[in-house]
Amino acid sequence: MFTVGSTLPDAPGRSGTITTPHGRIRTPAFIPVGTKATVKAVLPESMRDLGAQAILANAYHLYLQPGPDIVEEAGGLGAFMNWPGPTFTDSGGFQVLSLGAGFRKTLAMDAVGTEADDVIAPGKDRLAHVDDDGVTFKSHLDGTRHRFTPEVSMRIQHQLGADIIFAFDELTTLMNSRAYQERSLERTQAWAERCLVELDRLRAAHPDRPRQALYGVVQGAQHEDLRRRAARGLASLPFDGFGVGGAIEKESLGTIVRWVTAELPEDRPRHLLGIGEPEDLFAGVEAGCDTFDCVTPTRVARSSRVYTAAGRYNLLVSASRRDFGPIEDGCDCYTCTHYTKAYLHHLFKAGERNAATLCSIHNERFFVRLVDMMRAAIENGEFAELKAEWLGRYLAGRSEA
Amino acid sequence: MFTVGSTLPDAPGRSGTITTPHGRIRTPAFIPVGTKATVKAVLPESMRDLGAQAILANAYHLYLQPGPDIVEEAGGLGAFMNWPGPTFTDSGGFQVLSLGAGFRKTLAMDAVGTEADDVIAPGKDRLAHVDDDGVTFKSHLDGTRHRFTPEVSMRIQHQLGADIIFAFDELTTLMNSRAYQERSLERTQAWAERCLVELDRLRAAHPDRPRQALYGVVQGAQHEDLRRRAARGLASLPFDGFGVGGAIEKESLGTIVRWVTAELPEDRPRHLLGIGEPEDLFAGVEAGCDTFDCVTPTRVARSSRVYTAAGRYNLLVSASRRDFGPIEDGCDCYTCTHYTKAYLHHLFKAGERNAATLCSIHNERFFVRLVDMMRAAIENGEFAELKAEWLGRYLAGRSEA
Repeated sequence: MFTVGSTLPDAPGRSGTITTPHGRIRTPAFIPVGTKATVKAVLPESMRDLGAQAILANAYHLYLQPGPDIVEEAGGLGAFMNWPGPTFTDSGGFQVLSLGAGFRKTLAMDAVGTEADDVIAPGKDRLAHVDDDGVTFKSHLDGTRHRFTPEVSMRIQHQLGADIIFAFDELTTLMNSRAYQERSLERTQAWAERCLVELDRLRAAHPDRPRQALYGVVQGAQHEDLRRRAARGLASLPFDGFGVGGAIEKESLGTIVRWVTAELPEDRPRHLLGIGEPEDLFAGVEAGCDTFDCVTPTRVARSSRVYTAAGRYNLLVSASRRDFGPIEDGCDCYTCTHYTKAYLHHLFKAGERNAATLCSIHNERFFVRLVDMMRAAIENGEFAELKAEWLGRYLAGRSEA
Repeated sequence: MFTVGSTLPDAPGRSGTITTPHGRIRTPAFIPVGTKATVKAVLPESMRDLGAQAILANAYHLYLQPGPDIVEEAGGLGAFMNWPGPTFTDSGGFQVLSLGAGFRKTLAMDAVGTEADDVIAPGKDRLAHVDDDGVTFKSHLDGTRHRFTPEVSMRIQHQLGADIIFAFDELTTLMNSRAYQERSLERTQAWAERCLVELDRLRAAHPDRPRQALYGVVQGAQHEDLRRRAARGLASLPFDGFGVGGAIEKESLGTIVRWVTAELPEDRPRHLLGIGEPEDLFAGVEAGCDTFDCVTPTRVARSSRVYTAAGRYNLLVSASRRDFGPIEDGCDCYTCTHYTKAYLHHLFKAGERNAATLCSIHNERFFVRLVDMMRAAIENGEFAELKAEWLGRYLAGRSEA
């Protein structure tokens, strides 16, 4: 299902093609997120027109609403949401575990070397509890209790029917102790094996359905030996591809991903989960990841912020009020070719819904095109130049903003 | 600018064509509303695809935000909002006058024959005050004081640059006394004459701009003699067309509009302002109105209600949860041809923005197509049959819902 195209001369980065039952994905590729089976405020035809090759939805959210049985009965995720191309679902592991008390605060923080075994869910008010068999959690919608195990996640993702699905893994934080990280890795490895067994069972029970590709997810936080051990462990199993997950400090992203990709087979695709900003995408591509997803383009668009090659800015600033140019000169997106900053400023001031739609289209196009440019640069032998020039300009612009 | 096509054998209704600088409108036609230079939650290309021939925006709202100078500098309303077809703007009279204290409660109420002269703004907290020269009002956005006169409204609408604009009129309510209605009509007639003078001045000052058509607005509330007098008064002036405005009880709609159209010249188009439900559109078309606008299709869509030929229903009802059919069998809209009720139910439950977009597309298509069907029926000599069959089914379905 994956063929490598060109490779970088001095780094693990490569181009390639992933083939799925609903079409091919040329990599590296940015995969826009439609958490609840819809890209927020953007119709699927607009996503196709802006160059999206696939959409990633989330098993946890779709499990709670509308329920995987509804999506299955509709013919699967793509048919349900009117997206004929390839689809991914995240396993729900990240979501249910990030319900753990204190998680929000610590996920992005530096490691502090605590020896506490279970700092991710220490309080009475925690919404998630992990044991060796799975995770019990309370719905963020109504507080009802639910339980995910590797088998449950596979059954849900099988019902959702995405082309590429992820093994159920335990997410840790940089605050967890080294001892806890080791225990957690063993658990994630055991869960990965259970996911493969369960999906094989489901495939055999439904031989008529298109074969879903299953990616194992590499955890290990900031520890080189754990990351490498995790990658080797999963690489020994018949996964179709791999996700790189967990808490990663921004400055270490390229280093950590390289530890992982060095241990993974070259003939299987790698997805960097939930990353990120332009500089992170360069680091991830260079380090050998093939696909990326992130909610940032639509999330920031809803608060009137837009990306350009010279940095990010806010359309609500008064300078946009009488600016009859596009968000970004030369941008080929629908929004930039049909609307002015003055109009978008007006829509945000007026509280109009099309404001979010138009800025989401621009931001998604920005991320999709950026990774497309990286792919072309890899194939043309110009990745280093692109990174130096593009990222230099972007980071300089951003620091001025 | 207006040519009559076919006419009904036994009523003033007719088909025809309005020609504007931005294209033709085949009438009768439903004109979707984009109050603030955007149809709420729907992109212009979707409006074009669903058959909208023109868009109506509002001078009051665009005066407050972004300001008519911005729209003018952008090249006018159509260029600003990326709508290449014909545009209308309402004069702002309805909006500034409906800021009057108590207006909200009385606008749709029965006449009560009060002799009070100015019941629309009796209290200290009123936001609008009318005098013979114009209306002073407070912005609903920030409470700042503003003043509209016929000349101000013309200047604003000239800056906005819509193809069809409306004279500034005084809106009364059914609660106003007969004496007040008479005084108000004289005022509206005098304002109409001032609008013509001011627009002539503006046209002469900007000979390069496309000629905007100006419609006089017939008021007169529920009184036959006042409605006829108002129509005759405006018909004697060189208006390009006429609006029928003011508070109208639903049951009297057809009767009142016929009083008006009987006094208006046949070779000029008539627009029924802010109406309405399907039964009102049948009454208005039969009585000789050519164009209609209403916010209902998008407003109710945002609260999950959709129109069908068998009545209106709410997609949030649990019966839709597992219904994999479209909103309406046989509907040719984008939403019905690509999405199920189960998906739309999910989007509303999940609080997703595309829910409003998709249901607005369906509802706008429903209204546009309904009036298109009336036009075809007039031209085919089948209007009476369409009205009897379609409306009979619709009203029967509605009463069951």
